Amino acid sequence: MKVTFKDIQQAHQRIAPHIHRTPILQSQLLNRMMDCELFFKAENLQKIGAFKARGACNAVFSMDKSSLQKGVVTHSSGNHGAALAWAASLRGAPCTVVMPNNAPQVKRDAVAGYGASIELCEPNMPAREEAVTRLIQQQGYSLVHPYDADLIIAGQGTAAIELLEQVESEVDVVMAPVGGGGLISGTGIAVKAMSKALVFGAEPEQAKDAWLGMQRGERLAEYSPNTIADGLRATVGARNFAVMRETVDDILLCSEERIVEAMRLIWTRLKVIVEPSCAVPLAAIMDQPEQFKGKRVAIILTGGNVDLDRLPWIG
Amino acid sequence: MKVTFKDIQQAHQRIAPHIHRTPILQSQLLNRMMDCELFFKAENLQKIGAFKARGACNAVFSMDKSSLQKGVVTHSSGNHGAALAWAASLRGAPCTVVMPNNAPQVKRDAVAGYGASIELCEPNMPAREEAVTRLIQQQGYSLVHPYDADLIIAGQGTAAIELLEQVESEVDVVMAPVGGGGLISGTGIAVKAMSKALVFGAEPEQAKDAWLGMQRGERLAEYSPNTIADGLRATVGARNFAVMRETVDDILLCSEERIVEAMRLIWTRLKVIVEPSCAVPLAAIMDQPEQFKGKRVAIILTGGNVDLDRLPWIG
Repeated sequence: MKVTFKDIQQAHQRIAPHIHRTPILQSQLLNRMMDCELFFKAENLQKIGAFKARGACNAVFSMDKSSLQKGVVTHSSGNHGAALAWAASLRGAPCTVVMPNNAPQVKRDAVAGYGASIELCEPNMPAREEAVTRLIQQQGYSLVHPYDADLIIAGQGTAAIELLEQVESEVDVVMAPVGGGGLISGTGIAVKAMSKALVFGAEPEQAKDAWLGMQRGERLAEYSPNTIADGLRATVGARNFAVMRETVDDILLCSEERIVEAMRLIWTRLKVIVEPSCAVPLAAIMDQPEQFKGKRVAIILTGGNVDLDRLPWIG
Repeated sequence: MKVTFKDIQQAHQRIAPHIHRTPILQSQLLNRMMDCELFFKAENLQKIGAFKARGACNAVFSMDKSSLQKGVVTHSSGNHGAALAWAASLRGAPCTVVMPNNAPQVKRDAVAGYGASIELCEPNMPAREEAVTRLIQQQGYSLVHPYDADLIIAGQGTAAIELLEQVESEVDVVMAPVGGGGLISGTGIAVKAMSKALVFGAEPEQAKDAWLGMQRGERLAEYSPNTIADGLRATVGARNFAVMRETVDDILLCSEERIVEAMRLIWTRLKVIVEPSCAVPLAAIMDQPEQFKGKRVAIILTGGNVDLDRLPWIG
């Protein structure tokens, strides 16, 4: 395994001055409904509204000056683009984000708001990768991959360090959703080093490439997800899958209907705004409550960037 | 002045084991937009989703056993009813909440969820007060008034103690919305005892009874508010008004349109769910930005109990 707990600890020291130490949220009513004790690490209240600020910040603050001066690049239609734009702005580094030409205006505005350039491309993965490769070759930019990179995994793992420090006594389970696998792999390394808790990933049934890969013992390189949880439509990366096999005890699935129900429950009971992706672990608990009865369960709420004009429960 | 800072400190010791120490939220983008540094005390993340938990808890935990055994009563169509029901349940005391018969089902459910009885009455103030008086006479219940009571003022003031402790350096202004005046009067006493900060109340232009009263030097006993900020439709209480004259430096007004705009900004930038009432201080800053330029401004976010099926920006 390449990323170690020490890497995550060092990442935490590196990024701590720049990120929020986000709070743990609890609801007695929710605990009663779920028949377990839930601790929510509110990374939706993180800088740029998502845990992605951690990995991007770790990557950018690990770079040497001459690479920084040339600039950084990534492709993203979501939170990682905003996170890299934000982190680059802290060090005055040029940043370009390759975005599909159908990306919503609100996401473009977020990236542009942090001072990054946007390069539009056709809305498919080959076009995105080709645009990034061209920019690296022509401009000398450094790639900051959204999840399949050691510094990103180490950065995302820092949320679990805080979580286990903040929840004063032991927890039985730590859960995080699985998209590209940056968060769950960093979380797995940190939790296994710090505690005896089980580490569960959670995925929508309609985006279960990690679940299938873990069953087969081999990563799915291609998969077509179809879920409301837009943050989880990525396919698990190679580095991420390798770490997950070592540190993740199980992947739990949930239905699309439950995701919306769990999302609304979090809004109603915790009074915070979470993306559909955030609701996937709670939805998985609701779909298989038996194994959580009486347990102490920590969930990482990943992000809160939602189009407030279109809520899934409003017509 | 009857309630002292010492009362608020004692209230804080009394209720601290039962309430959340809610976090301070910040957004760099919001600071840039407003051209000042904003600190939001997130009482929407408090127990029962509102600061009202503080005052109700202080009142109930100050009562002797024999009064508690007889029970407590209040009238409320909003957060105070849920807060009293919750606080009474912590001490096993019977609780009755008089509610107007047109109160939304979600509010009835919240009160009933904490095990309180609901007594329905006609939806007007005389009917509510008559029902409460009858219950006190017939059942021997103790009244816990929503705002015009010393223990409530002391309890609500505890949020400001935490706020000033949590924001490590001095702030220039502390702002809170004004409804019945429980929060602003407790806040005024605490802030004036602890710091040199100005204390500003904020009111909707369409519910400006406190503003008018402060102008005239006399409390308005009757006033018909008409605002989306449903938590601020109460008229300032007598005790509250007396404290406000001593401790509140100014009351600022804002338009209804700004309230919705500010509410949406808080949802978007801070990723938390706030009621329209919460947005009134930020709306007042947006309506008169000059006096806040470059200042450090703390705002108490009061509550997050919103009907998620009806958002003011969705047609």
